Amino acid sequence: MTTNLVPNDSLLTDTPEQGRALAIKLARLIIKATQPDEATRVRLREQYANDAVMLIQIAQVVATEFATIAAANGYWNRKPT
Amino acid sequence: MTTNLVPNDSLLTDTPEQGRALAIKLARLIIKATQPDEATRVRLREQYANDAVMLIQIAQVVATEFATIAAANGYWNRKPT
Amino acid sequence: MTTNLVPNDSLLTDTPEQGRALAIKLARLIIKATQPDEATRVRLREQYANDAVMLIQIAQVVATEFATIAAANGYWNRKPT
Amino acid sequence: MTTNLVPNDSLLTDTPEQGRALAIKLARLIIKATQPDEATRVRLREQYANDAVMLIQIAQVVATEFATIAAANGYWNRKPT
Amino acid sequence: MTTNLVPNDSLLTDTPEQGRALAIKLARLIIKATQPDEATRVRLREQYANDAVMLIQIAQVVATEFATIAAANGYWNRKPT
Amino acid sequence: MTTNLVPNDSLLTDTPEQGRALAIKLARLIIKATQPDEATRVRLREQYANDAVMLIQIAQVVATEFATIAAANGYWNRKPT
Repeated sequence: MTTNLVPNDSLLTDTPEQGRALAIKLARLIIKATQPDEATRVRLREQYANDAVMLIQIAQVVATEFATIAAANGYWNRKPT
Repeated sequence: MTTNLVPNDSLLTDTPEQGRALAIKLARLIIKATQPDEATRVRLREQYANDAVMLIQIAQVVATEFATIAAANGYWNRKPT
Repeated sequence: MTTNLVPNDSLLTDTPEQGRALAIKLARLIIKATQPDEATRVRLREQYANDAVMLIQIAQVVATEFATIAAANGYWNRKPT
Repeated sequence: MTTNLVPNDSLLTDTPEQGRALAIKLARLIIKATQPDEATRVRLREQYANDAVMLIQIAQVVATEFATIAAANGYWNRKPT
Repeated sequence: MTTNLVPNDSLLTDTPEQGRALAIKLARLIIKATQPDEATRVRLREQYANDAVMLIQIAQVVATEFATIAAANGYWNRKPT
Repeated sequence: MTTNLVPNDSLLTDTPEQGRALAIKLARLIIKATQPDEATRVRLREQYANDAVMLIQIAQVVATEFATIAAANGYWNRKPT
């Protein structure tokens, strides 16, 4: 099956580093689903990569996606509560 | 019963990919409930699909909806904590 | 007792569909509590129903309210983790 | 002891209705702590009660506060998961 | 050890009131870490204390910090679920 | 293995203070991944360190990242619920 929204159709990763990369990817794939035109996305990416407010907002999205991924992965070895 | 806000009236999906698609759908159905006029929504969609800030904000909404859906689905096989 | 902020004074609903409707209602009742004047609210509603940014922000609020409602309802039958 | 940030120094309420009222109160008390001048707050309140964007942002804050209060209160009788 | 980001290097407080105060403090210390210059911070604080939008955004940050602090403190006696 | 998104590829820290520092670092590394050019980032950092709105938004991102880190670390000794 082709997946367009979740690579490998799984939230599980081996490490936090890979979890962060997945969080970035999930955010990008939502933007791709909302704006399928590649040329438009390239133009918009140029905008937000050079705008402080938008960079911070992207960081907010990634933080939110990562919270879910981290929970799915048992925080890659959580300390006992 | 007709459902206008949750397809199949369930948060459960078979896969993360389907969970992401549901998250997008849930967000769209709230916008539809708030702005029922189809022509207006088409016009507004044209706006936000071409605006970097709005695309990022949509990604934020989807990330929030997905967190709930992922929790409902036991993260589609969560690693042990 | 009159309730102005939570219909039936309960977060429990029979279905996810009803949970989404409650999330919308909770958000509206906060706006009503903050701006009690009906005529003003009607005017503002006209604004945000026709503004893409505001529609997305409303979707964000509803997503946040729904996360709480879904948790309260055990996600209407959560899959085992 | 005087409390300026949490009425009765407790997150527990008897009902969801009271929990929503507490969420509104908690948000207001943070604004009061940040801007102690009553006259300034009255002026700003006039602004945000008549601005659609700000009303939605206030709803977002209340939704976030309420999530914590609801968790503290066991969701006022949560359904079994 | 000197701590610049968390007073007493702990999230635990005796009461919700103290938990709110800690949430405000945590937010301020992040702003201090990002903008170390005292004079600049004083100037910016003057701005946001007199701007309705920014006051609401500060309330949002505090609500988010408080959610974590409340969880760390077992909600200062949570009701049974 | 080189890690570009998570220092030491772990969410675990010894103390809350270190957890806050990690939260700041995680946010910065996402911005770096989105805008790899050092000179551009320095220019943008100058902007947001002197803008009240952006400072508050950064605090919001850090609060969100910290919530995940705190959960991963069992809140550095959570009180019993």
